[in-house]
Amino acid sequence: MQHYPKHYCGVFGIFGHPNAAQLTYYGLYALQHRGQESAGIVTSDNGHFNEYKGMGLVSQIFKGEALSELTGNMAIGHTRYSTTGSSHIRNAQPLTGNCRLGRIAIAHNGNLTNAAQVRDELEAQGLMFQTTVDSEIVLNLLAQPTLGGHDNNLIETVRRIEGAYSLCILTERELIGVRDPHGFRPLSIGKVDGAYVLASETCAFDLIHAEFIRDVEPGEIVVIDKNGLRSIKAFPEHQRRAFCIFEYVYFARPDSTIADRNVYKVRVEMGRELAREHPVKADLVIPVPDSGNCAALGYSLESGIPFEMAFVRNHYVGRSFLQPSQLIRDFDVRVKLNLIGNLVKGKRVIVVDDSIVRGTTSKSRVNNLKEAGAKEVHVMVSCPPHMNPCVYGIDFPDRSKLMAANHSLEEIRQYLNADSLHYLSQDGMVKATGLPKSNFCMACYDGNYPVKYDSMVDKHIMERRVGK
Amino acid sequence: MQHYPKHYCGVFGIFGHPNAAQLTYYGLYALQHRGQESAGIVTSDNGHFNEYKGMGLVSQIFKGEALSELTGNMAIGHTRYSTTGSSHIRNAQPLTGNCRLGRIAIAHNGNLTNAAQVRDELEAQGLMFQTTVDSEIVLNLLAQPTLGGHDNNLIETVRRIEGAYSLCILTERELIGVRDPHGFRPLSIGKVDGAYVLASETCAFDLIHAEFIRDVEPGEIVVIDKNGLRSIKAFPEHQRRAFCIFEYVYFARPDSTIADRNVYKVRVEMGRELAREHPVKADLVIPVPDSGNCAALGYSLESGIPFEMAFVRNHYVGRSFLQPSQLIRDFDVRVKLNLIGNLVKGKRVIVVDDSIVRGTTSKSRVNNLKEAGAKEVHVMVSCPPHMNPCVYGIDFPDRSKLMAANHSLEEIRQYLNADSLHYLSQDGMVKATGLPKSNFCMACYDGNYPVKYDSMVDKHIMERRVGK
Amino acid sequence: MQHYPKHYCGVFGIFGHPNAAQLTYYGLYALQHRGQESAGIVTSDNGHFNEYKGMGLVSQIFKGEALSELTGNMAIGHTRYSTTGSSHIRNAQPLTGNCRLGRIAIAHNGNLTNAAQVRDELEAQGLMFQTTVDSEIVLNLLAQPTLGGHDNNLIETVRRIEGAYSLCILTERELIGVRDPHGFRPLSIGKVDGAYVLASETCAFDLIHAEFIRDVEPGEIVVIDKNGLRSIKAFPEHQRRAFCIFEYVYFARPDSTIADRNVYKVRVEMGRELAREHPVKADLVIPVPDSGNCAALGYSLESGIPFEMAFVRNHYVGRSFLQPSQLIRDFDVRVKLNLIGNLVKGKRVIVVDDSIVRGTTSKSRVNNLKEAGAKEVHVMVSCPPHMNPCVYGIDFPDRSKLMAANHSLEEIRQYLNADSLHYLSQDGMVKATGLPKSNFCMACYDGNYPVKYDSMVDKHIMERRVGK
Amino acid sequence: MQHYPKHYCGVFGIFGHPNAAQLTYYGLYALQHRGQESAGIVTSDNGHFNEYKGMGLVSQIFKGEALSELTGNMAIGHTRYSTTGSSHIRNAQPLTGNCRLGRIAIAHNGNLTNAAQVRDELEAQGLMFQTTVDSEIVLNLLAQPTLGGHDNNLIETVRRIEGAYSLCILTERELIGVRDPHGFRPLSIGKVDGAYVLASETCAFDLIHAEFIRDVEPGEIVVIDKNGLRSIKAFPEHQRRAFCIFEYVYFARPDSTIADRNVYKVRVEMGRELAREHPVKADLVIPVPDSGNCAALGYSLESGIPFEMAFVRNHYVGRSFLQPSQLIRDFDVRVKLNLIGNLVKGKRVIVVDDSIVRGTTSKSRVNNLKEAGAKEVHVMVSCPPHMNPCVYGIDFPDRSKLMAANHSLEEIRQYLNADSLHYLSQDGMVKATGLPKSNFCMACYDGNYPVKYDSMVDKHIMERRVGK
Ligand SMILES: Nc1ncnc2c1ncn2[C@@H]1O[C@H](COP(=O)(O)OP(=O)(O)O)[C@@H](O)[C@H]1O
Ligand SMILES: Nc1ncnc2c1ncn2[C@@H]1O[C@H](COP(=O)(O)OP(=O)(O)O)[C@@H](O)[C@H]1O
Ligand SMILES: Nc1ncnc2c1ncn2[C@@H]1O[C@H](COP(=O)(O)OP(=O)(O)O)[C@@H](O)[C@H]1O
Ligand SMILES: Nc1ncnc2c1ncn2[C@@H]1O[C@H](COP(=O)(O)OP(=O)(O)O)[C@@H](O)[C@H]1O
Ligand code: SF4
Ligand code: SF4
Ligand code: SF4
Ligand code: SF4
Ligand SMILES: [Mg+2]
Ligand SMILES: [Mg+2]
Ligand SMILES: [Mg+2]
Ligand SMILES: [Mg+2]
Repeated sequence: MQHYPKHYCGVFGIFGHPNAAQLTYYGLYALQHRGQESAGIVTSDNGHFNEYKGMGLVSQIFKGEALSELTGNMAIGHTRYSTTGSSHIRNAQPLTGNCRLGRIAIAHNGNLTNAAQVRDELEAQGLMFQTTVDSEIVLNLLAQPTLGGHDNNLIETVRRIEGAYSLCILTERELIGVRDPHGFRPLSIGKVDGAYVLASETCAFDLIHAEFIRDVEPGEIVVIDKNGLRSIKAFPEHQRRAFCIFEYVYFARPDSTIADRNVYKVRVEMGRELAREHPVKADLVIPVPDSGNCAALGYSLESGIPFEMAFVRNHYVGRSFLQPSQLIRDFDVRVKLNLIGNLVKGKRVIVVDDSIVRGTTSKSRVNNLKEAGAKEVHVMVSCPPHMNPCVYGIDFPDRSKLMAANHSLEEIRQYLNADSLHYLSQDGMVKATGLPKSNFCMACYDGNYPVKYDSMVDKHIMERRVGK
Repeated sequence: MQHYPKHYCGVFGIFGHPNAAQLTYYGLYALQHRGQESAGIVTSDNGHFNEYKGMGLVSQIFKGEALSELTGNMAIGHTRYSTTGSSHIRNAQPLTGNCRLGRIAIAHNGNLTNAAQVRDELEAQGLMFQTTVDSEIVLNLLAQPTLGGHDNNLIETVRRIEGAYSLCILTERELIGVRDPHGFRPLSIGKVDGAYVLASETCAFDLIHAEFIRDVEPGEIVVIDKNGLRSIKAFPEHQRRAFCIFEYVYFARPDSTIADRNVYKVRVEMGRELAREHPVKADLVIPVPDSGNCAALGYSLESGIPFEMAFVRNHYVGRSFLQPSQLIRDFDVRVKLNLIGNLVKGKRVIVVDDSIVRGTTSKSRVNNLKEAGAKEVHVMVSCPPHMNPCVYGIDFPDRSKLMAANHSLEEIRQYLNADSLHYLSQDGMVKATGLPKSNFCMACYDGNYPVKYDSMVDKHIMERRVGK
Repeated sequence: MQHYPKHYCGVFGIFGHPNAAQLTYYGLYALQHRGQESAGIVTSDNGHFNEYKGMGLVSQIFKGEALSELTGNMAIGHTRYSTTGSSHIRNAQPLTGNCRLGRIAIAHNGNLTNAAQVRDELEAQGLMFQTTVDSEIVLNLLAQPTLGGHDNNLIETVRRIEGAYSLCILTERELIGVRDPHGFRPLSIGKVDGAYVLASETCAFDLIHAEFIRDVEPGEIVVIDKNGLRSIKAFPEHQRRAFCIFEYVYFARPDSTIADRNVYKVRVEMGRELAREHPVKADLVIPVPDSGNCAALGYSLESGIPFEMAFVRNHYVGRSFLQPSQLIRDFDVRVKLNLIGNLVKGKRVIVVDDSIVRGTTSKSRVNNLKEAGAKEVHVMVSCPPHMNPCVYGIDFPDRSKLMAANHSLEEIRQYLNADSLHYLSQDGMVKATGLPKSNFCMACYDGNYPVKYDSMVDKHIMERRVGK
Repeated sequence: MQHYPKHYCGVFGIFGHPNAAQLTYYGLYALQHRGQESAGIVTSDNGHFNEYKGMGLVSQIFKGEALSELTGNMAIGHTRYSTTGSSHIRNAQPLTGNCRLGRIAIAHNGNLTNAAQVRDELEAQGLMFQTTVDSEIVLNLLAQPTLGGHDNNLIETVRRIEGAYSLCILTERELIGVRDPHGFRPLSIGKVDGAYVLASETCAFDLIHAEFIRDVEPGEIVVIDKNGLRSIKAFPEHQRRAFCIFEYVYFARPDSTIADRNVYKVRVEMGRELAREHPVKADLVIPVPDSGNCAALGYSLESGIPFEMAFVRNHYVGRSFLQPSQLIRDFDVRVKLNLIGNLVKGKRVIVVDDSIVRGTTSKSRVNNLKEAGAKEVHVMVSCPPHMNPCVYGIDFPDRSKLMAANHSLEEIRQYLNADSLHYLSQDGMVKATGLPKSNFCMACYDGNYPVKYDSMVDKHIMERRVGK
């Protein structure tokens, strides 16, 4: 049923709170949309580490006694959809280990682009890898003896890895937050009851009544210990920023704020831009819920065309496994959203969604509207066409399956059987954020990859090496 | 977290389809909102009955092999939240039995008002009851030897019971649909691939591509067998109709159509009525999703005040058990809906929901808005105040806990800390449906109970008798 | 792997003990060998009944909180392998119901021979049956209005049913024990901490430190209430006794005592008789554990030939499901018992088991001994050949699959590839018990059925009727 | 209920068989007594490793699809009770990793005595440990770059570790078996369908119809690949042998053969020795099943006093968790073995068990016999008193809790309330094996530890270091 770029990972960390594990649990709960495959929490209790990991949703994993055994006032947590390393409990994060520095744990959001190479080097030295997660490389780098002290160790580690990474690291005495120099993935700092918290998105702060302090800066390492928060700039020379613009378009929760911009507002603005770029005469604007809601509202507000929630989202979809039915045509599409047919009968309809990746789902929606008697169906997409795969942690299909990479606008419109089809322009998208274009990664739209990558790198690369 | 009248039951039936069990499964899936406690399916395969029941959600119960063993081309299904008989698998429906007529199964939506009395009579005759569900009484009545034939048997049964009931009955050769003479609960007839289907709501037809035919009439018995559908009027003299108006306000899915009215449209209209009855100057109209969505949209359309979805509904609430946190203030309220604070900061806000039952949740929402900096908060409710309990199958709290039954409008406003508080009038509510007032039960609003009831009747009455 | 007449049921009851449920649990645990398919406990707490039933072993079912919710100082319990009514939780016992007498529950060991007929009569009266267990008939008979008082009701009920039954019945105020007039199945009375207990076998008393009082007599009803124990003779005229002799041979636990005879001792005596009837020259006597242990020991003691436990029973067989392996020849046989080959190499071996039903297992054992180098293998069986099916609650195969019913002694010996084959005689078997032959049912050996039966009666008869 | 030295580990390996995983499964099933806490299997399929591990019994873990996904014709398996590293799935074996040699997996039976020291050295080099199992050290040593080739690598690894270890190692191309130079733990070589198998005990060969070839020699490394089996002597100079004599006394299965001695026969001989050393006048010899069976039989045969199985072992103990009952005195003891009281009433009884560790269980047994009316109770133990803890993989209690380490023979007799108490002598025990004393470790009896050990070493040592 997932027609979509899969979510990847959410990370959370807290230092100096008597209920560290419980708050981490709620933090992960709020970050659940960033990964539904597995989750885990590690706490540090006076140097003793406790951990609990499982497959499934956060609320399924941490039931019964699990949380109460996670004692200690420091914790990190992780929720994961695999982008590197396949689906297995052994690959669930946080990863933990014991090394010359004592106990250490790591939670990682993003995707390293030089994982294979660094791993080969470490293995040649006699190191052993027990998982196929790229984060294990970071763990082993941290364990390497280094010239200089603790900070040097951290700096040497992050300077040796490339790609996208927002990290929460737990040692016996500290909580450490790291963001790669491009700042691909978000990572924010908050405070609750005097304790520092780190989270992938600010919506995690709301649930636990934590106050938002600031974002971790691209290239910044923040070390939080009993003396407070200390900042290390690991890449002082690095200029280029490359925040993933797709977080604004789709991934992040609308109630999060990133780089001072509320996601909901950015999306409404994208809808307004769309209305400005592509005015169309119609009777109704309807969203494809939930990802299309904000942009549709923006389109409606800007155009004055009434907003109707004609697609009703089933409350129970996804609550547990529902097998696709061979028996029922378009089952996957209908089971999630049911159309109220007589709202659209005889109407000219604008339908708004955030993106079209493979196209099959959109085609079914248009078909659904036409069968219900819609006179015209105009498809509006609140970002530009996806032309390229993402190598920084988002699981798009191969280029060969990306609709827009292989077909003209007109071909796609015909395939969808829509009366018209419009995408927001690259400039419109950027403009809606209110930030300069240079702040963003937009590689999946414009092919301009901020960090070079080995074209062989893909989700299963670590496993494949195994059989070499 | 459930602040609300609990859903009760959904029923489904199908006759003469090779995939009877599977379609019943999807039908129940679409009716899941009518009961999340237990569910079951019974099929009839040339006189052999197969059944499967379980606790939990439909999609959790029917996984693995369960469905494939439910062979046969006739089936009924049930999804349940208990209103009579407590929570236990033995009380899950459909109930089945073997009697002089052969095998028989029953699925029941509603609440009998003379259950205790009829049961006493039957026990005195030497009958034995194995569950505490009032539906078992119907099953036993059907088994009683009667003068006259099969139809008389059905008629005598329904004439002996009182209250609210929409039934699907399966025998070795027939599917039977029954609706009480007041028509408290909905029941519709559809057709798919030439086979008849019955369902509590039409949204179940949409998912399986069934065509809607008509509603079962109040007091009608429809007998479906290999010769087609035959209608019996069991109460030809009965006039009074009493469809539960609260189905339109809240219970039914917005994408269902009842008595020719689409629920979504009725709700939007209630919002418009509310705007007409209670115009207020404000900057934003925001719904309490999802039950407040339609009325808020109606209010916005009628008043011209912009609509903003400032409360964001968490996609994962309810997917599995999440314990209320003592640690976090207002946790239950916040975990379900997160407020995007900076949308409301400094604004005059109208917040629309379908009803206020106990008041605690609404109070937290207003508080949430005020803490985020809303200048004014006006609470709008899309139905009149609930003054009385329901005895026809809806699980409201006792009168003693119904806010409006014990406090004046002004007291409630103060309790909520709202700047103003407005309810839709009884007439406004009825008007929005476009149907005459005489069609409806409105007892929980106006105290006018269409069927008299024993004031001792309540959810656990059958169990309590046990200990007598 | 089960080559054998399956166990059927164990019953337990207790009146007037603060830990009624817990002691019932331990009682059932000790009776586990009488049924491993499902189990249940019902308690009565001042007229309120609590029940818990499940599929599987007693210790798997009653874990976690299950027991602590079974409050009350009266209880009955049941452990079951199905002989009437198929395998399903709805058929698990005790069965409970509510009737004019209030709450009632029943646990039944045995098999009624006129179930179908009585059920037809009751259905014609308008009764409804929800299970396919013959015990539901007893429950419904008890609910029938009767001339005369409570005792008449019990007496009329037991006089209407025929066959084998040992019952524990729980009402709101009493515990009732019943044994059919032939006394097919055992039922004993004990006392612990001043409270009466009933159990299928005395081994259940040992575990809970209860003192054995006496057996319930054939045809006796014992009513235990706050005034103590009262005995009703329901069949004063009935003379014929028919205790199942196979309980001594195989079914009962060796540590139980029935009719004043310890089962272990009876079995040792059967082995001695076997040695007297069939002396053979050999080097070793080895049992097929565990059912062959006692008789083998008796044979060894009587003959002076050394006893060796050359078959080692795997401690883990049966602890959870182990699929028969296609891969490994004789897997089912080997996985349960492993032969210590070099104990038997070059030796003349006497191997003793309790019975040969289908013969395949015995054939594998002989083969196993020969492959390991045994010079001679003499098979000794500690009861006579099984010639007829049992209709009183033991699940033998059909006559067509009973080895001895279809083949001569010599044919069986050849089939087994044994050097000699000997069965204990009918007289020898009876003599070993020290009781007169007239006390016993021996129908499966001698075809002399104490209660006539409908030849159609079999395990699934109740289900089959369903489809008529 | 476990009054006893806990079992530790069983290992199994197979090379070149199309059903490698399935045979490993059956092999582990036969070795279940060597560890019931967790189990796992790893297969190698043309360089691709598949693994599956779980908590619980082998037959619980490998159900459903688990086995069929373990493709490949080479496999190792492990079943474990933790002696180093605590109870957690992450500590389950086999452990696997990826290193410069490719994929590698290890299964380990025994206990390293220099684990902490080697681990410290490796950590100082920059290695990271993810479990608290000492086997991870072996895995990492194998990954270290070494001068010389593959064999040197193996030899350097085993020469760096000390203590007790029988290992099965799987690489992408080989199965390797290793036994420590003292040969503390057993490891045998077999062959089935032309494929080599390794197993802790020969009983694993019987189940899969494998033929026993020979034991792996102490200090030997056997490398099995497509060219057959190659032997490396890693400790050519090492002389001292130290096979754990307690394997004969209690641990190993009676149907196994170790060093050419069948365990059952050795135990019967121990019983005979006991009868020679300690003749006592009595009426009956009864074993404490099952560990006392063989020695009791030996005592009976030698003394001519009749053997009676008066303690009946419950077939269901241990099939699932049964909580100790506070309610029932001696519950733990009674639930496992029930005494047939009237066998011992008025009799002088000799009761034989393999060992007395803490004494509480034995005390209850004697009490049980006395309460049943035994005139005299003579306790016979088929090995000498345990005076010292084991550091080679057996989980005895601390010396402070070892009965014999703290009390005289007479004190123990009085504590047990026995009429006499006798242990087999050290010489008698050795004599019963038919092997020279110098072949054995007997440290727990005589304090003579063949390998020195750090007195801090104990089960949780690896975890404790964590918090340093
Ligand atoms: N499966 C469904 N899909 C869409 N809407 C539903 C579904 N089930 C119920 N609804 C609607 O959702 C509303 C209830 O949702 P919501 O307000 O979020 O929960 P609550 O019951 O806690 O108020 C009802 O008005 C009902 O009509
Ligand atoms: N917990 C959440 N609460 C509210 N919105 C969420 C949550 N998680 C994700 N979202 C938003 O919902 C959208 C995705 O939902 P939807 O469109 O229904 O699913 P799909 O991923 O199939 O397109 C995203 O835009 C995301 O920002
Ligand atoms: N699978 C098995 N089959 C037969 N005997 C076994 C098996 N596993 C272990 N044994 C033997 O059983 C004995 C242990 O059983 P027992 O005495 O009943 O338990 P405990 O460990 O509590 O003393 C040991 O001597 C061992 O050799
Ligand atoms: N809980 C128990 N404890 C001891 N013996 C039992 C128990 N249950 C049954 N038995 C005895 O064990 C024998 C059955 O065991 P066994 O021969 O191993 O199995 P099978 O039923 O496959 O022949 C019966 O004779 C029975 O009396
Ligand atoms: S390629 Fe696209 S999805 Fe990937 S990081 Fe860049 S903008 Fe985000
Ligand atoms: S009392 Fe209210 S909730 Fe109940 S049936 Fe009538 S309108 Fe519906
Ligand atoms: S027929 Fe055989 S098994 Fe059945 S009751 Fe009679 S003796 Fe027992
Ligand atoms: S100390 Fe005892 S248990 Fe340990 S290896 Fe030596 S003989 Fe075996
Ligand atoms: Mg979407
Ligand atoms: Mg609501
Ligand atoms: Mg047997
Ligand atoms: Mg023992």
